[in-house]
This record gives sequence, C-alpha cells and structure tokens, in this order.
Amino acid sequence: MNPEHLQTLWEEVRDVSLGSNSAIDRLHTPPTPLHFLRHYLSQNKPFILSSTATTTATTSLWSSTPYLLHTLSASTVSLHLTPTGRADSLTPHPTLPTSLCFASPHVTRLPFSEAIDLITTTQTNDTFVAYAQQQNDCFRGEYSPLSGDIDEDVPWATEAIGGPPEAVNLWIGNHLSETSFHKDHYENLYAVVTGEKHFLLLPPTDVHRMYVRDYPAAHYNYSKETGEFKLEIENPPRNVPWCSVNPYPLPENKEEEMSKFPLYFNGPKPFEVTVKAGEILYLPSMWFHYVRQTPDSRGLTIAVNYWYDMQFDIKYAYFNFLQSLPPPQHQTSHDFLTNGNASDGDEKHKKESVLTRP
Amino acid sequence: MNPEHLQTLWEEVRDVSLGSNSAIDRLHTPPTPLHFLRHYLSQNKPFILSSTATTTATTSLWSSTPYLLHTLSASTVSLHLTPTGRADSLTPHPTLPTSLCFASPHVTRLPFSEAIDLITTTQTNDTFVAYAQQQNDCFRGEYSPLSGDIDEDVPWATEAIGGPPEAVNLWIGNHLSETSFHKDHYENLYAVVTGEKHFLLLPPTDVHRMYVRDYPAAHYNYSKETGEFKLEIENPPRNVPWCSVNPYPLPENKEEEMSKFPLYFNGPKPFEVTVKAGEILYLPSMWFHYVRQTPDSRGLTIAVNYWYDMQFDIKYAYFNFLQSLPPPQHQTSHDFLTNGNASDGDEKHKKESVLTRP
Repeated sequence: MNPEHLQTLWEEVRDVSLGSNSAIDRLHTPPTPLHFLRHYLSQNKPFILSSTATTTATTSLWSSTPYLLHTLSASTVSLHLTPTGRADSLTPHPTLPTSLCFASPHVTRLPFSEAIDLITTTQTNDTFVAYAQQQNDCFRGEYSPLSGDIDEDVPWATEAIGGPPEAVNLWIGNHLSETSFHKDHYENLYAVVTGEKHFLLLPPTDVHRMYVRDYPAAHYNYSKETGEFKLEIENPPRNVPWCSVNPYPLPENKEEEMSKFPLYFNGPKPFEVTVKAGEILYLPSMWFHYVRQTPDSRGLTIAVNYWYDMQFDIKYAYFNFLQSLPPPQHQTSHDFLTNGNASDGDEKHKKESVLTRP
Repeated sequence: MNPEHLQTLWEEVRDVSLGSNSAIDRLHTPPTPLHFLRHYLSQNKPFILSSTATTTATTSLWSSTPYLLHTLSASTVSLHLTPTGRADSLTPHPTLPTSLCFASPHVTRLPFSEAIDLITTTQTNDTFVAYAQQQNDCFRGEYSPLSGDIDEDVPWATEAIGGPPEAVNLWIGNHLSETSFHKDHYENLYAVVTGEKHFLLLPPTDVHRMYVRDYPAAHYNYSKETGEFKLEIENPPRNVPWCSVNPYPLPENKEEEMSKFPLYFNGPKPFEVTVKAGEILYLPSMWFHYVRQTPDSRGLTIAVNYWYDMQFDIKYAYFNFLQSLPPPQHQTSHDFLTNGNASDGDEKHKKESVLTRP
C-alpha cells in the first residue's frame, strides 16, 4: 500500500467537496429536504445549522433543573459511571499493564433526581464521572415525559431520508465526559440543548489515520461500598475494533503518541466544530468523531441526537474496500509524511520539527 | 494490489445496492425529485423509466421522415463517418499493425436531408457508416427546429440536481453504429425516441476490469473521390486513455480476448438494459457503458440525451483513489478468478472451462 495514494485521497476529498480549512459549512436557515439531500446527505458532508426556533425554546425549558426534576419525577434513567469520564475508550489492561483494552462504563438505573445529583456532584468529587445516556432510543423511552418539549424528528431530514429516526437519544453530562474517536452506521442529527459540544471530525476516507485495531473488551464495575472501580476483562473474551488515536494526549505522552500515529498527527487537520445550545450538527454516517463538552452554568450539557438509517450504497462499498487495504508500513508513512513531499515547503519543515524535536 | 480485495468490492456494491442479477430497477411512473435523489442519484445507481407520455408523443412525430425533412429543411447537421460504425474506438494502428490506436470519426457538416440519406443508405452500402451526432449540445443548436417536440429537460432530474441540463444531444444512427466502453463526467438521462438502444453497464467500482490504457490518438479521413478512409495518427501525437475491452469479440478472437482481459470476462456480468422508444435510462456519472442499437422500421434509431453536471464529491475521490491503484498482475488475477475462490462451486468450473478450453 503506497502511502502517496492515501495522501492523495485525503487531499482530494477536501479539494473537491469538504474544503481544506478544517471548518464545516454553516447554514442559517433549515435546508429544504432536496437541498439537504443534494448537498450534504448524498455527498456524505457535514454542516452545522445555527440555532433554530425549536431547540432554542427547549433550551429555556431544560435550563431549569426544577422543571426537569418535576417532569421526570417518576422516571428511572440509565447512568454510565467511569473513573475519568472516558466511557467506551481505550485504557490500560487490568492485568497486562503494557497493553490496552476497550473499557465500557458501569451502567446503573436509578431515579432521575439521583442521576442528576451524581452528574452534578462529579464536579466536586473525584471518585467517578456520571453520564446519563443510553444509545437505545432512550429519549423516547426513559425520557418520554420530555417528549413534548422538542421535535420528535428533524422534519427536513425525515423527508429527505424517507422515514422517521430509528433512535432518538438524550445525553446529560458534565465537563469531564468525553467520547473517543469512533464512527456510527447512522445518519446523525445532533442537537445541543444546553451547554456546548466540541467535535473533531474525520471523513471515512481517512480510516487509516485512525489506526483501528482490535482490543480486548472490558467493563468497569463500580462498588458503592468501597467507592472504587474494578476493570474486568469480559469472559468469554472478545475483541472490539476501535480507533487507537487520542487526539489530545497528555503533554508527557505527546511525542510518543505522535510517533505512534503519524498519519493522524501529520495528515490534514480534522474538521473542528463547536455545537452550541440551539444548534444542530449533521454528522454524516461513517464519519469518525471525537466529542468533548462545555457545560452550562449548572455544570450540565444536554443534547438530543436523532439517528436515521443510512443507505448502504457505493460509498459504503468503497469504504470497506479502502479499510481492507493494509495500512502503509509505519516507517514508510512516517518518511512520506515528513520527507516525502519535497514541494511541501514550510509545511514539510513544520512536520519534521514536530517529529524530531527533543 | 491483492485481487481478492477488488473482487470483494465488485461483489459488495452489488450485494448492498445494485443487485446481483445484471438487471437494473424499472420504474413505471416518473420518480419525484426526492425519490430520484435518495434512491438513485445519491447512490450512483441506474434505473429505467418505462415509456412516458412525453417521449411517446415524440416517437409518433419523429417516426415520420417527411416530418423531419420538412422541419429540418433549412438545417445543417454534423455527421460522423467511419468504415465500420465504431467511432471513438480502438482499431489497428495504421503504421504499427500489431498495436492499436484510438480512432475518431471523420466529421462533416451537411444539409439534414443529405445526412439522413447517408445514414439510411448505409444499409445497402459497405463503404461507410454514417451517424448524425455531436456531443456539444447539438439538439439545442443544429436541431433547434425540433425543440418544441420534446421536453427541454427531464423535470424531476432538473429539480433534484438543482439546475437545467448542461447539454442536450441528438443521436440518429442505424444498426451498425456502436459506442465502445467509456465513461462520462455527467449525470445522463438517455431518452430513446425511435428504435432501441442496448446498453452494457459497469459501475465505477469495476474500473480495473476495463483495462484503461493509453492509446495514440488518430482520426479517419474520408475521401469522397476514392470512397476510402485513411486513418491518420494525430500530429503532434497525443495519447487517449481508453477502455481496452470489446465485450463482443469476433468468434475467432474470443479466446485471446478473454485471456487478455480476464477481470472483465470472468468477473460479475455487466448490467444489461434495452431502452425502447419512449423509455428513459438514468445512466449515472462515471459508469462505464457500451451501446449498440436496433433501428425502427425505417432503419433509424433516434435518441436524445440530457447531460447534467455531476457532483464531485466523496464518491469521485474514492473512484480516483481506486483507479490509481495498480491493477492486479495478469497471472495473479487469472489464477484468482479461475482458481482462487474455492467456495465458488460450479461458477469456478465454468470460469476454468472458459479459460482452459482448447
């Protein structure tokens, strides 16, 4: 696998369709279904829609914790607990300390009032991070008392795609929750209601830059008594293919991470977008995304996302073909991205200095 | 380049989107713009629309040669002359007899009544084959007196794509005209008005099966005096990348052609569709197509095609990436397709016998 071919692909999809400045299109009025289909869905291209009437009204309502407590007073919800806020992410293997595993959160169900307490108290407590979420259509299930507050679908998306969302999920977290790079087999309309979400996005063409590898599945087990987490490898064992790249490594690990994942750190920058309260992100199917969040004044970020079925078409076949190609050899890709493009001028020196600095 | 990866791609695009029986979708009523976008344009997937009111009315009108002669009595049109009916196709090089060149037709402009005579007399004359066509929006230029007879666009395509056709071309030929495998950078709505067109279609995923290679450009020069063609290599020389595969080789060449182009002859069958008078084919951008025709009772096939701008999006970037990958080695692909897939059962034996028969 010649890394020059991959590099050309990453650049071409930006040249012809996505743009090269790491920003995505911003629309100020909802697109028509035809416009959405023609310019975004069909092209597998993201955009952000500035605050719309509907979600702005919801923001006022859901910014009131008393309102939420009252409306959900009889509701039991799913809460995900992790020691650090990183659920569904790579973490040191519990028994093989030099290797990593894929850790799922401890999931518990409890009254909404207790859940919101735990999410909020995370701020002053370093035992765990709580995140109310469940990607099983939870908004229309656990949170159904809120269903009158926000559109049950995104009308222009429903009309373009030809059917209602397959799942609608609610997310209530705090500043510590983050979601590691991954992709979904859904068209995703992501509406932030309070606080902000910060996305890093990479198109499916960039799959080799994610270093998707198999990791043993593990899950956290939290003990109320000891207040401690135990990370346990699943039995029977199974592997989960997951993106290896952490886009924000700790300063002390940065150099090592950059040399382990040169295609990510030295290739084109990911697209960056902050979705604010009242805004909606169209996150196309098969796009890799990493998410952090900034809370509102209460310390909460609340979002609703609508998952619509994706079309399995020629784009999907191309993606699977691309992914099936062996990655470039490490040394080769490193050489290529740092030295291979002699016409690259300053950019080349920037890249070299990143990798050769002391 | 591992041929198994390619084989998987060809199969997967059929499994998930196109179907595996070499037939394309048939619609009996015009799609809405949304339906066209969602199910065909966005998926880069062809379909045929059964006869529609508009083109059926045009069929009645244009089946009358006196009507055409009357309406176009003041028109001068472009006529393409070749010795065999194969314009824009590979033919033996005029001075290097073991190699091929890419031959363009002799193009002449003459009154419509003379053009129609030459196309019709081809039937009883083996000096040349005449084809009235010019892919430069000729319907709205040379043939403008006919413009009131047929829609100036395909309304549901114009609305889906967001603009009128870039070019509308008229084609008047006879049973000897054929068009070799090639692709266009346009979305194509192909309306047959009289006679029939027979298409072989291959999706862009199958590019390696076309053996696209560079051939020296040449053109035919026809002398009225001698009644003979002279094939001349262009000066200054230039190369044209063109598909090497002739899907219908002469019986005496068949075995050799099949062993030269095993990925074509032993891979999945091309999609086959006959477009009859009154029917419209959606031929997606970047699809390889080969066309033959059957004439009406006068010996003519008349068609109008609408070329709309294509979107250069992630599909285009994927295609260019795929095409840039070196083809599998000849021997390897031959071995793979004939012996490599042990689970292939009967199909495998069929393929072997094709290649190993005496």
